[in-house]
Amino acid sequence: MIDPVTWKRLGDDVLPGRLRLIDQTRLPRELVYVELDELEPIIDAIRRLVVRGAPAIGCAAAYGLAAVCQHSQARTVAAFLAEAAATAARLAAARPTAVNLSWALERCLAQLREAAGPAGGPDALKRVLIDAAIAIFDEDVALSRAMGRHGMALFAGQTGMRVITHCNAGGLATSGYGTALAPIYAAQEAGLAPQVYADETRPLLQGARLTAWELQRAGVLVTVICDNMAAALMRQERIGFVIVGADRIAANGDTANKIGTYGLAITARHHGVPFYVAAPYSTIDMALPDGRGIPIEQRSGEEIRRGFGCQTAPAGVPVWNPAFDVTPAELIHGIITERGILQSPFPASIERFMQRAGGAGAHA
Amino acid sequence: MIDPVTWKRLGDDVLPGRLRLIDQTRLPRELVYVELDELEPIIDAIRRLVVRGAPAIGCAAAYGLAAVCQHSQARTVAAFLAEAAATAARLAAARPTAVNLSWALERCLAQLREAAGPAGGPDALKRVLIDAAIAIFDEDVALSRAMGRHGMALFAGQTGMRVITHCNAGGLATSGYGTALAPIYAAQEAGLAPQVYADETRPLLQGARLTAWELQRAGVLVTVICDNMAAALMRQERIGFVIVGADRIAANGDTANKIGTYGLAITARHHGVPFYVAAPYSTIDMALPDGRGIPIEQRSGEEIRRGFGCQTAPAGVPVWNPAFDVTPAELIHGIITERGILQSPFPASIERFMQRAGGAGAHA
Repeated sequence: MIDPVTWKRLGDDVLPGRLRLIDQTRLPRELVYVELDELEPIIDAIRRLVVRGAPAIGCAAAYGLAAVCQHSQARTVAAFLAEAAATAARLAAARPTAVNLSWALERCLAQLREAAGPAGGPDALKRVLIDAAIAIFDEDVALSRAMGRHGMALFAGQTGMRVITHCNAGGLATSGYGTALAPIYAAQEAGLAPQVYADETRPLLQGARLTAWELQRAGVLVTVICDNMAAALMRQERIGFVIVGADRIAANGDTANKIGTYGLAITARHHGVPFYVAAPYSTIDMALPDGRGIPIEQRSGEEIRRGFGCQTAPAGVPVWNPAFDVTPAELIHGIITERGILQSPFPASIERFMQRAGGAGAHA
Repeated sequence: MIDPVTWKRLGDDVLPGRLRLIDQTRLPRELVYVELDELEPIIDAIRRLVVRGAPAIGCAAAYGLAAVCQHSQARTVAAFLAEAAATAARLAAARPTAVNLSWALERCLAQLREAAGPAGGPDALKRVLIDAAIAIFDEDVALSRAMGRHGMALFAGQTGMRVITHCNAGGLATSGYGTALAPIYAAQEAGLAPQVYADETRPLLQGARLTAWELQRAGVLVTVICDNMAAALMRQERIGFVIVGADRIAANGDTANKIGTYGLAITARHHGVPFYVAAPYSTIDMALPDGRGIPIEQRSGEEIRRGFGCQTAPAGVPVWNPAFDVTPAELIHGIITERGILQSPFPASIERFMQRAGGAGAHA
């Protein structure tokens, strides 16, 4: 398994430590780790997509909060709480679309506030923060494995099934096993030899760079296609299903995910190919009745005008570069969660799921 | 107007001369011309997409045939005819999908055979070849202008209409004015200020590199998007229509065009946006009853693995890279030709059109 987000101890104890990330901007050319414990470099790493993928961003933010706050000079509990809240607010603003980011930070702060009375001074609270972050990470490992088990049902025991995925919702996007790729890994482990077509995923090529890289490492047969080839592929080959991750799911099932997901869902519907989303409870935002309220991050036009250092469009030409789109629930066959596959009608199945999911940690 | 394909006289007379091309692989960074009069470099230029776009390939092949054959040492008409036929066969095999390539070469050879008796020796036949090529070029200029006039009806006099196009079916893909972009240029000239969204068109980015470049030069408002953003764009903005070119149209209207066209057509249908193809009669292949018979060129996986010199996927990862796809006729609202807009049912409208089009030059 790969380790995109980890807590690096500097000694025998859990503190002091650092947030350790695979620098995903340098994949697939080289596997390089960075270690961080200051606020601005952590925000920068999230913004530059050194770490990306909703669950991985959640883990990185939680570890990042603990890493920054371990250096706090606050002498009172109140001062420490204020400092942690301010740090969390800065981290939460790093990227707007993935709800796991603010979910993880809110969960850490809530545990901090609960502990503030009994736990004693700032040093004890520093330990509460890292324990909260480790719990989020460990939970993500368990959630990913559970999504893998449930999602494996999509293969119905068939070997060699062809599956299309978009962007990277694999180990690199999580604690190490994936959301959308978890059922694929589970099928591979069960000897079903799935065949994955990975959309390269413009503009930042997370599919070509990351999904292809991690599936190859795991011995899964993967073929890279340009995003615009999925339709022709569905016409030519029998595709078992499409599976993608999610950055935020509204209460009705509308799903924000990497730009291009919506078009892929339309294409799948046109060809009668089932379209699945895989995400844990922390990706569901019950505060939003539907997808219209999901904030969509707009990124720099240079990502499109200058692909990987090379000028590929006239300098300064206008560009539209939303990082995500929203796939309406009616195009989604099912949502694979850690407790099973949610099916239409989604408002009801999502509500039942959220009532049971996440225990006290579930966010409002 | 731009001049992607021209005949460069070396003196006052039409012969000797050279095929002169804009090297489209170097756009938008620099505007560089190459001059060619030998067979292998011309084939290489067509394969490497120095010149591309079905009508432009047709013009380049015709000029190329004349450029190569002007150097013939054949002493008899029969020897010259055999040499020209062999040269044409090599040129025709350079790329398989665009029918304009073989159409143009066949038309030149047919005129050569007709002239072989009365015209005298090889020197006279060399002049027949360049005259035939110039006629194809001049005809393409007229066809483009006519498509522009007819296609302008799609704007219905509205200003600021938003239009999506894919790949480059503009001046650079033709003699200088375009097929899909011809109505846009006509609308711009009429003061309608169309707003064009150009799909960047992976893997070779003809939309970002070429369409954006030539529209900007002409003062047309153009915004570049990644191919996978068209669906989100159609959901967010009111799009008047989608318009694309074609590399080959079967007798029933099934249309081969740049990979991604089919997915764009599905997306347009899903949003109720009309989808148009623009192409002259030379793009229609009446020998094929439907799109299943259209040969689809597969190109090197390196185009996807190494975008513009930078490694963007694991070395050697399997890639599927068809250069074209086929959009079934039922997704096409209309085909804009030099004689008007053909509408469904296409087998009938196409047959009527082809009976009148192209005069003696129409291919079987």
